[in-house]
Amino acid sequence: MTLRLDRERLVATMEEQATYGATEDGGLHRLALTEADREIRDWFVEQLRNADLDVRIDEFGNTFGRREGTDPDAAPVLVGSHLDSQPNGGIYDGALGVVAALEFVRSLDDEGIETTRPVEVVNWTNEEGSRFQPAMQGSGVWAGAHDIEAERAKTDDDGVSLGDALDDIGYRGDVPAEPATEYEAYLELHVEQGPRLVEADADVGVVTGIVGFTWGAVTFHGEADHSGPTPMHHRSDALVAAADLITSVRRIPGTLGERTVGTVGYVDASPNSINIIPEEVTVTWGFRDPDDAVVEQAYRRVLAEAEDAADREGVEYETEERMRAPAISFPDRTVDAVRRAADARGCRGRELVSGAGHDATHLASVCDTGMVFAVSEGGKSHSPEEFTSWDDCYEAASVLANAALELATDPAE
Amino acid sequence: MTLRLDRERLVATMEEQATYGATEDGGLHRLALTEADREIRDWFVEQLRNADLDVRIDEFGNTFGRREGTDPDAAPVLVGSHLDSQPNGGIYDGALGVVAALEFVRSLDDEGIETTRPVEVVNWTNEEGSRFQPAMQGSGVWAGAHDIEAERAKTDDDGVSLGDALDDIGYRGDVPAEPATEYEAYLELHVEQGPRLVEADADVGVVTGIVGFTWGAVTFHGEADHSGPTPMHHRSDALVAAADLITSVRRIPGTLGERTVGTVGYVDASPNSINIIPEEVTVTWGFRDPDDAVVEQAYRRVLAEAEDAADREGVEYETEERMRAPAISFPDRTVDAVRRAADARGCRGRELVSGAGHDATHLASVCDTGMVFAVSEGGKSHSPEEFTSWDDCYEAASVLANAALELATDPAE
Repeated sequence: MTLRLDRERLVATMEEQATYGATEDGGLHRLALTEADREIRDWFVEQLRNADLDVRIDEFGNTFGRREGTDPDAAPVLVGSHLDSQPNGGIYDGALGVVAALEFVRSLDDEGIETTRPVEVVNWTNEEGSRFQPAMQGSGVWAGAHDIEAERAKTDDDGVSLGDALDDIGYRGDVPAEPATEYEAYLELHVEQGPRLVEADADVGVVTGIVGFTWGAVTFHGEADHSGPTPMHHRSDALVAAADLITSVRRIPGTLGERTVGTVGYVDASPNSINIIPEEVTVTWGFRDPDDAVVEQAYRRVLAEAEDAADREGVEYETEERMRAPAISFPDRTVDAVRRAADARGCRGRELVSGAGHDATHLASVCDTGMVFAVSEGGKSHSPEEFTSWDDCYEAASVLANAALELATDPAE
Repeated sequence: MTLRLDRERLVATMEEQATYGATEDGGLHRLALTEADREIRDWFVEQLRNADLDVRIDEFGNTFGRREGTDPDAAPVLVGSHLDSQPNGGIYDGALGVVAALEFVRSLDDEGIETTRPVEVVNWTNEEGSRFQPAMQGSGVWAGAHDIEAERAKTDDDGVSLGDALDDIGYRGDVPAEPATEYEAYLELHVEQGPRLVEADADVGVVTGIVGFTWGAVTFHGEADHSGPTPMHHRSDALVAAADLITSVRRIPGTLGERTVGTVGYVDASPNSINIIPEEVTVTWGFRDPDDAVVEQAYRRVLAEAEDAADREGVEYETEERMRAPAISFPDRTVDAVRRAADARGCRGRELVSGAGHDATHLASVCDTGMVFAVSEGGKSHSPEEFTSWDDCYEAASVLANAALELATDPAE
């Protein structure tokens, strides 16, 4: 049994969602729990109701639409992603996964298919982590990785708490933010956000897992001095040590693994004045790899490089690892379902490990989890330049739908 | 004729001024045109009046106290510095020069000395350039380097204009901010803010000039991408290029001259998020040397290094030189007056070129200008750790007073 999606409706739904929080350059600015988020949530609930789904909203704003199966007591299959965006992000990131999930249940109706298991479509709250940290927050609360009250207390740059923002847009629901039953599986379609599918000339990505990572920060403490009268050999310049570390982070991945990446995304210098030798500089590190042992190596390397950089410049330093996530391997069952769906369509599927975290990261602790990647032209994301052709959207959505259908169907049938 | 200052009064006056804008750690936080600046200006005017000086305040807040000479038409000798401080600065920077100038005229009175030329004591507005830029602003306006209306329009970080701030503290005076007559000479005592006098075991610095400098900024434009799925070889990371340049600026002085210094004091990265590859990073440069040709070499070197750094990382870049100041050589006449005053006291004087700009920089375009440096223990300044012993304060103030007395006295006498 193969499910055929309505390409025109998929495209129209994608275009419609992209009007909420649209920016002039064709992107999206739809930060979690803002007015734009309220509008897209209202729109999403309307789509769920139009598809005759049973809507429920949990206390953290995660929103589900349920389509019963022939066995209402069976563990459901959950399909979805997120509708919030980065600041000035693109229109595919997250939204494509939610729209594809909607198209999946719409197409089941079109063809009068009854699944054994219930199917649920979900939009997770605050995947992006732009206005409120951390990212993947709603799925993390739901999966039990975070305490809901602690997350409600998080504040944005204006001091507004997440709890107040959620209540203000009217999306604090009445269902506990946790799985009420066992779940059979979770499938998520997402744009790749990298160039590997394009480079492999693939139509769709069969995601086998998610890389592990270490995030942290190094703060160097030098001596603030007037930049004029202080001879070079008297200086302990925190920014010079930080520059050394930035250079090291650029170099470390090339010595570790083919898939290792390392980034310094953040720098903060004090007093940050053209005429004063920098006293205190903080830089972050982020390393990812599919192999936890390589992540650990990268972590040890960055600590050693920080020590060397501090020694060379005669500054003090301290390090703080802020987060460590182990690599995730999706179970054969979900990966095989995705691969079979791709093969059945005659798609060129490529197996790959996701370089970014997704809501699927947290769901992997709840139930068998898998992901489908859509091609990202140019590998761009988190920007209005993010682009996936409608053909590629349709291929990936079709693979998602057929993999979900397989998982929702009792093998005996 | 040797003028002997009152050491006890000098110390008491220094201690008194340090109570205005005092910080808990023994420093000063007395930013230009704030309430603390108004208070220290009120105090200063009171000191001028107590010394029977004729007070005048110009339209930019520069405040003068005049003691007539036997020839009231003679060009006056001007002595002073500034009373504003850096954020959490020290108690000597600037203030010692103003207090020493006060002590000079008080001591003339003590000993009943009449100078041929009028003597004026001055406190320049906003030397530090912390709240409003540029530094040395009041002396720059007075010397004709800046247009007063343009400087009044400058705003602080809260959008308050300098003109409003000056008016609010009641220090927009009624005298044009320009020399009303010719000036015979300007002498300024300042703490060295560097370690050279300590290293030379000298009691006082005979300043022969001020280094030239180039200030500018390089902005690198890379590509913002998600730090997870973007392979290392696909990246154009603006911060990596900036780190390269920071390292180069640390290295360049050691290839140019014994007195060359180079600093990156400021860095600004965008979007500055731990999880996004930096798209745009601006870093500043500052190079100083007593030789203009070396400053020019440093400027050319930093441009070449910026190009190389951008090439290596595949990013675009642009450079902007924001300021270039030629080196200043003080005339023999003022330098000799300072040296003779030091010799007469039996002081160990050391000739040196100031590594920092001072109000004397602008005054050098108005009249014969000279400077005296007091020893900076540890070479520290712009911090509460700034320290000059009272002995060293007294030595330097005595040298300043006797040099000024020589310049204010008709050689025929």
